[in-house]
Parts: sequence; structure tokens; C-alpha cells
Amino acid sequence: MNTKQVTDMISLLESLDTGQMYLGDFFHTWKKLDDEITAVFQTAEILRALREMNISTRLFDSGLGISIFRDNSTRTRFSYASACNMLGLEVQDLDEKTSQIAHGETVRETANMISFMADVIGIRDDMYIGKGHRYMQEVADSVQEGFDDGVLEQRPSVVNLQCDVDHPTQSMADMLHVINYFGGIENLKGKKIAMTWAYSPSYGKPLSVPQGIIGLFTRFGMDVVLAHPEGYNVMQDVEQTALKQAEASGGRYQRVSSMEEAFTNADIVYPKSWAPFAVMEERTSLVEEGKWDDLKALEQRCLTENAKYKHWECTEDLMKQTKDGKALYMHCLPADISGVSCTEGEVAASVFERYRVPLYKEASYKPYIIASMILLSRFENPAEKLSMLLENAQLRVR
Amino acid sequence: MNTKQVTDMISLLESLDTGQMYLGDFFHTWKKLDDEITAVFQTAEILRALREMNISTRLFDSGLGISIFRDNSTRTRFSYASACNMLGLEVQDLDEKTSQIAHGETVRETANMISFMADVIGIRDDMYIGKGHRYMQEVADSVQEGFDDGVLEQRPSVVNLQCDVDHPTQSMADMLHVINYFGGIENLKGKKIAMTWAYSPSYGKPLSVPQGIIGLFTRFGMDVVLAHPEGYNVMQDVEQTALKQAEASGGRYQRVSSMEEAFTNADIVYPKSWAPFAVMEERTSLVEEGKWDDLKALEQRCLTENAKYKHWECTEDLMKQTKDGKALYMHCLPADISGVSCTEGEVAASVFERYRVPLYKEASYKPYIIASMILLSRFENPAEKLSMLLENAQLRVR
Amino acid sequence: MNTKQVTDMISLLESLDTGQMYLGDFFHTWKKLDDEITAVFQTAEILRALREMNISTRLFDSGLGISIFRDNSTRTRFSYASACNMLGLEVQDLDEKTSQIAHGETVRETANMISFMADVIGIRDDMYIGKGHRYMQEVADSVQEGFDDGVLEQRPSVVNLQCDVDHPTQSMADMLHVINYFGGIENLKGKKIAMTWAYSPSYGKPLSVPQGIIGLFTRFGMDVVLAHPEGYNVMQDVEQTALKQAEASGGRYQRVSSMEEAFTNADIVYPKSWAPFAVMEERTSLVEEGKWDDLKALEQRCLTENAKYKHWECTEDLMKQTKDGKALYMHCLPADISGVSCTEGEVAASVFERYRVPLYKEASYKPYIIASMILLSRFENPAEKLSMLLENAQLRVR
Repeated sequence: MNTKQVTDMISLLESLDTGQMYLGDFFHTWKKLDDEITAVFQTAEILRALREMNISTRLFDSGLGISIFRDNSTRTRFSYASACNMLGLEVQDLDEKTSQIAHGETVRETANMISFMADVIGIRDDMYIGKGHRYMQEVADSVQEGFDDGVLEQRPSVVNLQCDVDHPTQSMADMLHVINYFGGIENLKGKKIAMTWAYSPSYGKPLSVPQGIIGLFTRFGMDVVLAHPEGYNVMQDVEQTALKQAEASGGRYQRVSSMEEAFTNADIVYPKSWAPFAVMEERTSLVEEGKWDDLKALEQRCLTENAKYKHWECTEDLMKQTKDGKALYMHCLPADISGVSCTEGEVAASVFERYRVPLYKEASYKPYIIASMILLSRFENPAEKLSMLLENAQLRVR
Repeated sequence: MNTKQVTDMISLLESLDTGQMYLGDFFHTWKKLDDEITAVFQTAEILRALREMNISTRLFDSGLGISIFRDNSTRTRFSYASACNMLGLEVQDLDEKTSQIAHGETVRETANMISFMADVIGIRDDMYIGKGHRYMQEVADSVQEGFDDGVLEQRPSVVNLQCDVDHPTQSMADMLHVINYFGGIENLKGKKIAMTWAYSPSYGKPLSVPQGIIGLFTRFGMDVVLAHPEGYNVMQDVEQTALKQAEASGGRYQRVSSMEEAFTNADIVYPKSWAPFAVMEERTSLVEEGKWDDLKALEQRCLTENAKYKHWECTEDLMKQTKDGKALYMHCLPADISGVSCTEGEVAASVFERYRVPLYKEASYKPYIIASMILLSRFENPAEKLSMLLENAQLRVR
Repeated sequence: MNTKQVTDMISLLESLDTGQMYLGDFFHTWKKLDDEITAVFQTAEILRALREMNISTRLFDSGLGISIFRDNSTRTRFSYASACNMLGLEVQDLDEKTSQIAHGETVRETANMISFMADVIGIRDDMYIGKGHRYMQEVADSVQEGFDDGVLEQRPSVVNLQCDVDHPTQSMADMLHVINYFGGIENLKGKKIAMTWAYSPSYGKPLSVPQGIIGLFTRFGMDVVLAHPEGYNVMQDVEQTALKQAEASGGRYQRVSSMEEAFTNADIVYPKSWAPFAVMEERTSLVEEGKWDDLKALEQRCLTENAKYKHWECTEDLMKQTKDGKALYMHCLPADISGVSCTEGEVAASVFERYRVPLYKEASYKPYIIASMILLSRFENPAEKLSMLLENAQLRVR
């Protein structure tokens, strides 16, 4: 990448309408304009180019990036830390275990108390249906109120690092990988992607990955197929959105009931375990009511049900049915690899191994996607700022 | 706030005698000169103004701010992190659980081992009477010795983030809120503040907040009233200090035995639960001797005793008895709000709700107060440094 | 230290062959060239001089220093944090407990996932024989592969913060202390160092300290003596290396079986507990096989065996037998001090107390040694970079 190419990318970014992203949040991709989605990709690529040219991307001299992880995390934690560091923000983690968040302390209060110096708040809350997004929205509303009331000097932006509905930093990183793999957004029209359920020895994996994929990939004129065993439905709202978007983009969205059908002639396959929406809802209720025995029973029932679908595995035979037997295999990682991380899992070891490098590249986009979302929410004229970085050419490593 | 106003504030700061703060610690407000107290407020306001003007306040290019939290904390943790970040220091937390601090490793050793690159050490240790302050003093003595012996290249400053005796970052943030609320320090003379005990379903809350308030507010010619049920006394030393200071400042300090009396005609009310000093002393002994059954019994006894005073609640009726029914309600947060965070607590929900915004503003001063204490302890000529920041006008967010 | 002196040190550094350190790792000192070892000391001293002159040593505008501590740590954690901060890197800790590292997730995957923006990875993994170094090597191989495959934009350097074989940041800090104590590397020829086992009430302390010492100190023409009770052998490979190095440097390496013999006429004594190599091997197997009862039995057996050697204590009487009764006492800390941190331990309280200040100074070199290792692995021409820092003379504290 050279200066001329980066300048061109910045010009393209300048032509996009990103005004509404300024001081806004990033919750669901489908709530964002096409220009905004494009701007996230464009900015991510510019940031990567600058870094590869050893040009500093510090737009903040100081400032905090708050993180709230309500579930264990390595990849997202490190991606968020990388994104903040790249822009000059220091991560301050709200660890709900060592903090004084008492029973009954309102979200509104906590949100304000941690935000006096916060430029951004990244949240992962993907455990319970109907909870994660609601929590993020409440945090966003609270800091807006705090800003309006003169409590906060700045209104931090909330970035969804995975909720119960969408996982935008994942789906956008995935899409950027796809764009680069196929040589440009313009080459995606008509390409078939099979987002399919796959067997895992665990139960209760979040729905936000499949939902995020069908909720984003249907915008690009692609042939998006969701496949899962009966009962493993995702949220209906998201499917509606996928349908509408597919129509508008000249693509297609459909649901099928076998991996075979989904894989046939697919350009991309994304086999991954998730829990049925209905189960996730039931789980949420049981946890709320503190019915721990019923919860155990539910888990047992689900594991038994899951076990019926052990043949939903991404095998070499299935891969052969894809376009020229060479579909791009994708996963958000970590995958349940048969014979490696478990006895029977989502994917055959040989398939995973063949795609290891592309999988790691897929993951490598996430820090840039997060940094891009932060940048676009904090700067009214992102193109101008990026131009300034390019011109100043302050070295990251001296 | 404009440049002219900030320049004036810096001039005022320049006129104050802050020489003894340089390379010193901040333990108790009452050990500080009037000029020093004023300087903390002044510096905090200048830092806030600079930040609001988007001017970087980084006085450190690199350096560590160590934190030691011996009790859970959200507010103070984030305030300390904000303060350090604002000045350019990176927080490094000493987590005594994941550290190798063996039984018998001396405070002197640990203090030196963590301080090779430390510019400041913030400590919260408020759990046991006679312990917290002693620990902080020991850390301060140890790093002084380390510096004198040539072990440490710099002598880090210790900042008390709450001990058993005082909570200076809280009381100073509270006071700065009051100063701004009443339009200036000169308007505080004769204003009545009711620092009163209030019922909470928990027991054993630290005494350092009420002690901090009476130990600071009595310096400003105010009418300071402490109210609590019989037996819920605070430390006698601190009351002596409050009395002397009130006299010297032309104010008044008195203790009364009912919330009603304290609230009558008060300009400010600060109703908050705390444990009796005698109980806190007993608790310390029991913990030291490992008498866990006796500790349980003590807790039970205290809860029973506490329950007698459920009527010590900041209700709407009580608020009506304050000056024009409009006293400023204060709290260090989180408050025990009746019907919200507990069944019966320190304050009625409607009162709390009406004061939510001022309460959050009150809390918003803490990062600046901490940053101010750090700055004054690390720079011999703080006014000069702040002028430099203003002139250079390096943007915080580019 | 003045500018002229630092310039001279930089010139000396420039004359050394450090080319192979660039983009490399630091595992064992004995795998490094003499020039490389000298360069680490020289760079550490230059960094210390710059800091003492209040000159910023930030060579990174942004970037991450990853840390992986598989054992509790205070000293090393803070030293690593200090080293990173000094150079401009932000520490991001991989906490394997709050991360999503599932059973079966490969080291290769984790290593890549945390390294997208990493300039350095510091690892402490000293618990099991045959594990620690192997793990570090695997991380290094993985990130090399990731870089070669285009997954990582930079290949982070791995720094051994203590493994089962060597503890290079400790032994190098120790040696720098010795060099300064005796007034220069040229004064070490013929000096006798007694690296001896000592009794501790615990069992299973790592072998990497004694191995690190004999594996490094034998390069300087010293008379290196290892002493331990029968059965408390260290790894044979390391002893072989020590023997060869001693020969090559015109020094001597020998093993004796009593503290008395080792201490006689010694210039330096380093009495410290460790577990027998054979025991550590057995422990590793038992843990691998999950034989917890056998492990308990092993521990009991070792403690009983240890108890036979309580007289292996660094007493005043023993100290009198050293050169002029004034040998330099060394320890990596924390020490088991008789009557202070335990009833009977490695060293008499009065001996420890007399050497407290030198011990703390010994420890103070570690942050600089780590920073030096990082710097030498990230910059092809370190002398040039350090000259630039000296010339620019950007203040660390303004």
C-alpha cells in the first residue's frame, strides 16, 4: 500500500454520508445506512494501511476506552484493547466482580460513574435473550442523559462487542475478509453463502453470530442460505430483516433444513453451533426466576436433542459439494474441531487445518473494524483526520 | 470557560503556598494548610477547564500510577484511572490475590518492589480501624527510605483513596461541588450542613466519609452539624479537629441526636449510614484474633441495633424542614434507596430521584480532585506547568 | 551521569554485534553471544541514565506488550509493566481464567489471536519441568508462522520472564548488580560466587534461578560454586553448559556438597531454596496424569526430606567465612527469612537486614533489563535509536 492508494481510499471515504455516526453508537448493522457500512470497511482498511506503513493512528492524546465483558473473552478483549491502543485510548475494564456494583445499583448510575472521562464504551453481553441489547441501549440512554444534564463532558459512544441479537464487530470483520478474498465488494453479487448450524458437544452458544451474518451479508446481493435442524430457529425479526435486505439488494435469503442443501454450490460456508431461540428464551426465564434445577434439566434436554444432529459436521465430503469443492470456510473461532478440541464437533480436523490461515486472517480484521467504529463515532470529519495522520506521518515505531 | 479565565485561575494558584506539597503525600485534609486545600480546588478546576477546552493535560510522557485497592471499588477505581490517564500516567494495579505477596513479606519490601517506576501510589484501605492510615503511612515511609537509600530513582507520592480516618478525595470532591453550587467559597460562611447517620440494611460502612466531611467543612465558616443515634460516634480526634477548625474559621461544630434537629434549616444534608467507632474497633480485634464466630455475633448484634433506627431515613417530610425545603442533598454513592436498592434505606426514592443530577455532578469532581492532588505532589511549580499546557494547547482529541 | 558519558556508552553499544537479536526472542542467556549479553547490560544502563536525566525513552508511539503469567507474580509483573511503559507500549494481560481459552484451543491459535497488534510477548511459565520453555518456544514458532503466512503484520518478540530452565531477566539483573557492585565487568575475573541451596518451609521452588546463575556467571571468568544437599541436583544440561563456559572464560565451575565449603572465601553468596530436578520431573508427570493423591504424597515426602537440611541456612557464622567476612549476599526475593517470614528459613534475619538495601538495588535492575531485551529485539540499530532519544531530549516529566 502506498500513499497514493491511501489518499484514494480517504477520498472515497470523504464521499460517504457518515454524519449520523458522529457521537452515535453501533448496535446492529441493519440499523446503519449503506454508506455507514461502507465507511466502516473503508476506515478499517485505511487504518490497516497506515499501520502497515508504520504511521501512527493516534487521534487521542489521552482518554479512556471502557470495556464491560459480561462473558469470558480473549479475541474480542484483545481486539478491543488493540483498537483503543491504536487510537490512543487506554482501556479501563469494569470488572463487575471487583467493583462495588451493589444489588440494586441502577445501570444509569453505573454508566455515568464510569464515563466521566470515557470516549467509548465497548460491551459484550450475549448470554441471555432479550437482555444484552437492552442493557447496551440502557447504557447509551444513560450516558446521553448524563451528557444532556451536564454531568458528563462528553457523551461516550457505545460499541456492541456482541449482544443477544447482533455481533457487528464479528460480522463486519467476516465481511471485510470476504470482500478481500473475492477481490472487492463488486464481486459478491450472486455469491452463495451457507450459514449453517453445526454440532457441538456444548449447548447454548449465542445466536448473534448467525443472526449477524444473515443480517449483514444479505445487503450485498448475495445468495444467503441459513440451514439448521428443525427447532434451531434464530430470531424472527432478524430473518425478516434479512429477507427485506436480500430483496432490496437483488440477492436472496432462504432457509433450508439440511447442511447438504446449503453447501451445494456454495462459495462460502460458515458452519457453527448455536442454541435454539426458544431454548435461549426459556433459559433466560429460568435464570431470572432462579430455577436452577429446571435449568439443569433444560441443559440436559438440549444436550440430548443436540446429540441427534451429530451428523451436522463440516466434513471433507460436504466441502466437495461446494462450488468447485473450494468454498471459503469461515468461523468466528474458537471452533469445535472433531478429534482436536472434542471428539465430535463442528468441523473435521482436515478441513479446519486447510483453512487455518484464512481463518486467522478473518480474525485479524476485528481490531481494525472496532477502531473504525470508534473513529467514525468520535470524529465529525473522519476523512480529514485520516488525511492529517497520513500527512503528519508520525512513526508508530520510531 | 475561556483562556482569559483559565489564566486568572492560574494566577490565583500561583499566589498560593504549595511548596510543601511537592514530593509529599495526601493523607488527611486537616493536615494540609488552607493554601494547600485551595490549591487542590483551584488546580482541579483548571484541569477541568483545560479538558473542556480540549487541551491536553499530559504532563507525563510516560510513568506509572500504582493502585492498591484492598476493598471493592468502582467509582474510586475509575476516578483514579481517569486522573492518571489525564496526566499521562498508566495505571498498574497491585492485585494482592494474583501477586506473590507471601505471608510475612513486609510492606517495606512490597512498597519498594512496585515503585521502581512509580510516580504515584493510590491506596484504598478503609476496612479496619487503626489499619488503613497506618498502612498508607508505612508505604510512604518505605518509599522515602527506598529513595534515600538510592533504591528508587524517584519518591512516589501516596494518595489516600480512602482510609479508616479520612476520605479526602471524596470530601474534597464534595466540597468543590458545594462551592460551585453556592457560587463560590465566599458564600459558604454560615451555611448549615447536616452530616447525619441514616439507616441501611447493611452494617459496618466506613466512618471515613462523615469524618472527612466534618474534618473539612468546618474550615469554611460553616455551621456543621453531626447527627447520629446514641452510640454511633465517630473518632474523637476528628471531632476535636472539627471543633478547633470551626472556631478558627468563625463557624460552628456541634453534635445533635436527631435527624430532625440536624435537618432544621439546613442548607445541605448528607444522610449516610456508618458503623459505630466502638464496633469498628471491636471488629478489627476479632478479625486480628481470628474469632470468626464472635464476628458473626457482632454483626448480628449490630444489625439488631441498627434496626432500631429505621426511622433515620431522609424522607420528603424531613426535606421540608430544611432551608426553604430546598437543602442540597448529598451522598458519596451508592446510596441505599428505599424501595429501589433495598426495602428500607438511607433515603426515600423521590428525594434521591430529585437530586440525581446534582449527585452525579458531585461525583464528577473526583477524577479532577485526584489529578490535582497528583499534580501538586509532583510539580514544584504547578502554575508554571499549567500555563505551559494552556499555551501549548496540544489537543486532547485531535 | 552526563550526556558525554551516555554518548560513550552508546558508542560502545554501537560496536557490538546485535544483528541477530533483531526480531528475535530471549529464552536462555547461554544461547546468546557475548556481544549480545554485553549489549543487554549496556542498553539497560543507557536506559537508566536517560531516565535519571528525565529524558523520555518512548520509542513506541503506541503498541501492545502482551503478558502471560501462568504463576503468581508481583516483582516480574511490575518490572514488565515498567519496561513496557518506559518504551511506550501498553501492557495487555492474557488472563487465562477470564479468557475463552477452551480445552483444546491450540497454543498456535491463541498466540496468533492475541498478537495482531503485539510488539512483544512476555511469558512466565516456571511451574513444570519440560513445560515452560516448550510453551514459550511454541508461542514463538506460532507467531513466526503467523507472520510468514501474512496473518500478523509484525512478528512479536517473546521474552522469557521465567521458565523451567532459565530465568534470564533475573540472572541478568543480578549480574548487572554484581558488575556495578564490583566496579566493572573487568573486575569479576576470579571472584568466587557461591550459588547454594538453602532450607525453606515450602517445597517445589523453581530451579530456574540457580540454573540461570550458573548458566550466566560462568561466562565472566568467575569461580562459580554450586552447593546443595545430595539429591537436589539441577538440570544436567545446564551444568554441562556452565562447565564449558567456565573453561572458555578462564574461570571455574564446580559442585560441592556443603554450604560451608561454598561460602569459604566467597565474594558473593546466593543461598536459595529449590526443589530437586527429579522431584520436579515426578511432579510434572503426576500432574499430567491427574494423580492428586500421589502428588500430596510426593509433597509430604519432599517436606520431610527438606526438613533434614534445616541447617542449610545463611547465618552470621557462615557469612564470617566469606572473603573478609563481607561477601555480597544476593537473593531474587522474596526470601524466607528466619523469624520474620517463617520460623526457620533460608537466611538469618540479621544477615538479610544488613543487605536489604543492596537486595532492593539488585531488584531495581530488572525493569531496565527487560526494557533492554525488548528494545534490542525490536530495533535493528539500537545505538542509533538511543542517540536519537538523547538528542531529542524529550522530557519524561515535563
